[in-house]
Amino acid sequence: MKANTNYGKLQSSYLFTDIAHRVASYQKENPEAKIIRMGIGDVTIPLCPAVIEALHGAVEDMSKKETFHGYGPEQGYDFLRSAIQGYYKEKNVELSLADIFIGDGAKSDVGNILDLFALDNTVVVPDPVYPVYVDTNVMDGRKILYMNADESNGFLPMPQADTTGDIFYLCSPNNPTGAAYNREQLTQWVNFARQQKALILFDAAYEIFIDDPDIPHSIFEIPGARECAIEFCSLSKTAGFTGVRCGYTIVPEELTYDGLALNRMWVRRQTTKFNGVSYITQKGAAAVFSETGMKQVKDVIAYYKENGKIMAKTFEELGMVFFGGYCSPYIWLKCPKDMESWDFFDLMLKEANIVGTPGSGFGANGKNFFRLSSFNTKENTLEAMERVKKILK
Amino acid sequence: MKANTNYGKLQSSYLFTDIAHRVASYQKENPEAKIIRMGIGDVTIPLCPAVIEALHGAVEDMSKKETFHGYGPEQGYDFLRSAIQGYYKEKNVELSLADIFIGDGAKSDVGNILDLFALDNTVVVPDPVYPVYVDTNVMDGRKILYMNADESNGFLPMPQADTTGDIFYLCSPNNPTGAAYNREQLTQWVNFARQQKALILFDAAYEIFIDDPDIPHSIFEIPGARECAIEFCSLSKTAGFTGVRCGYTIVPEELTYDGLALNRMWVRRQTTKFNGVSYITQKGAAAVFSETGMKQVKDVIAYYKENGKIMAKTFEELGMVFFGGYCSPYIWLKCPKDMESWDFFDLMLKEANIVGTPGSGFGANGKNFFRLSSFNTKENTLEAMERVKKILK
Repeated sequence: MKANTNYGKLQSSYLFTDIAHRVASYQKENPEAKIIRMGIGDVTIPLCPAVIEALHGAVEDMSKKETFHGYGPEQGYDFLRSAIQGYYKEKNVELSLADIFIGDGAKSDVGNILDLFALDNTVVVPDPVYPVYVDTNVMDGRKILYMNADESNGFLPMPQADTTGDIFYLCSPNNPTGAAYNREQLTQWVNFARQQKALILFDAAYEIFIDDPDIPHSIFEIPGARECAIEFCSLSKTAGFTGVRCGYTIVPEELTYDGLALNRMWVRRQTTKFNGVSYITQKGAAAVFSETGMKQVKDVIAYYKENGKIMAKTFEELGMVFFGGYCSPYIWLKCPKDMESWDFFDLMLKEANIVGTPGSGFGANGKNFFRLSSFNTKENTLEAMERVKKILK
Repeated sequence: MKANTNYGKLQSSYLFTDIAHRVASYQKENPEAKIIRMGIGDVTIPLCPAVIEALHGAVEDMSKKETFHGYGPEQGYDFLRSAIQGYYKEKNVELSLADIFIGDGAKSDVGNILDLFALDNTVVVPDPVYPVYVDTNVMDGRKILYMNADESNGFLPMPQADTTGDIFYLCSPNNPTGAAYNREQLTQWVNFARQQKALILFDAAYEIFIDDPDIPHSIFEIPGARECAIEFCSLSKTAGFTGVRCGYTIVPEELTYDGLALNRMWVRRQTTKFNGVSYITQKGAAAVFSETGMKQVKDVIAYYKENGKIMAKTFEELGMVFFGGYCSPYIWLKCPKDMESWDFFDLMLKEANIVGTPGSGFGANGKNFFRLSSFNTKENTLEAMERVKKILK
């Protein structure tokens, strides 16, 4: 048996392990230090009452013969697909139920979708980048090109005259930089992809944080996108589902390459290598899109966004350069005095007892940047900003 | 962008669609007919009380800040991995926690594990076969060889002097034939795989139906298997989790090919392309392995097994040839008078109002066979057997 030796080419990924070790070591030496963790992109607020109620109801369904659910449709139950169809309709995006696939999270689908693409495609990702886009393609042996995302383009790379490639990853609002494409920019991307017969993989995991009408929630708000894009979204950030696992992927029926319809291929992939998401989870997910549920999750998002504003205000006052913090749970802070990101990490940990994520973990262009997230309590966020003011003033 | 054209080589899979159409059409013409469905391998009995209680408890955990769970470990929570470790220990199989991976079902893991293997491996499957083994490899473009499973070997193919290949799929107790390898046969397979440096993918999804000490529940009961086998199992059949989605995969730390440890590769694959199983689901799954839970699920299995015995007794009385029905939820019935399986399907549907699965859907060697499952009520099973007696006597 021969192993897939592409795995030997993967770069060791010790970013969060390294962070954990440094934090643990500091905490051991300073047991009294009250460390505030603003590094990882995990949520902290419990599921909203509408979701909890729906989950309990679904568990009850599973306890009785008359309402028990065995194997469900691999693409998801229509009650949830219809709810998502309605959610897009509010953004003036018309989807057919067949366009919508329920999965166990955006990370799974972003990885597994690659099954549909030939190995000799060239993949184009931004730098800095969410590492999953890179690693999943290294595993398959695809060629990867990088687009510079930096201060000069506001961390929003655009197609250039010499840009080539087959599969383009766009994440907007972006992880890690918090930057988000506006309508005009996304239109340029869609036009470019259609001309090049390229495919855009659009990661909309943070769309719920958008409250600017000029920033699209979905790439399908752009005319022509149905001919060149697949969109991934998840309830992880929308409704605190990081531990519940439910996402959705939009594969328009128009997408055809080499005479093969990607939508039909994805149906085949999912019916063969997946068995659908838990009925219980899907009932909880559907509750997110109810009137009550959506109000409750938006209250939580407003809470996180308030944290983002508190951080943004602090860094503005300090005259620091940053991206995000607006339509995004992330702030992408330029380290002061050309500090490198791991040095700034150590400074923040030791002087302010704050944990963030060093930008170099996301690529060369993150060398002098630092990611902070707003997924914390307001109290901790306020406290963290007071500490920041003291050490960075 | 170039699509993965291997998808164009997939055989259209209309087995269950065809069945559904024929049944719907018959029911429409005969609205009074009381059709008994014994075709599909889905369970019908609700989740046991211990699981329901654990699920409710976990939902409550997710409603409170103090007990809320966000991202969990991709390989599964230790509380569940430890429970599975204990389950194997009862079979005298010692596993480390690192060997055990929690997933969302055996179908996902059986498909996704292929990411770890080079594309130029030769894959060997039995005929008849669970179609997922074939289709997942066609998608990747691997060469596939078939081993004859037929009456001459009791539908249990063994390695022969001229058997070659890199990756061997063994499913025991088998879907669709119900046949199960005994200890001596599995020992031969393990010795063969070690000599050939081949890998066995062992599908143990139906192990809970085994009650014969000579038939191993796990391939790891066989000495040496840790050097040549990966095992897949699931709670779908064990505990009625077909709609809840939880399985487990054992990748021993000893497995090394081309200098790459499959266990570490699978860790990397799952941390990159998967985000773990729902906390709620894992709490429900752990309850299956509690003393109370295990007693409750075994009562359900005993109920299904009683159905299998009722069927086996009927076919014995009728002097028919069949496999399975013992240590398995499936009966693999030889169609009488050399009938082909779709003709027998039509006969059973029209004359007895019973739906089974035509064996030809699983491969050439299923041409004259018919799969029946015991996942029905006892009342329906008894009624179905009365009808069978009438038409086949």
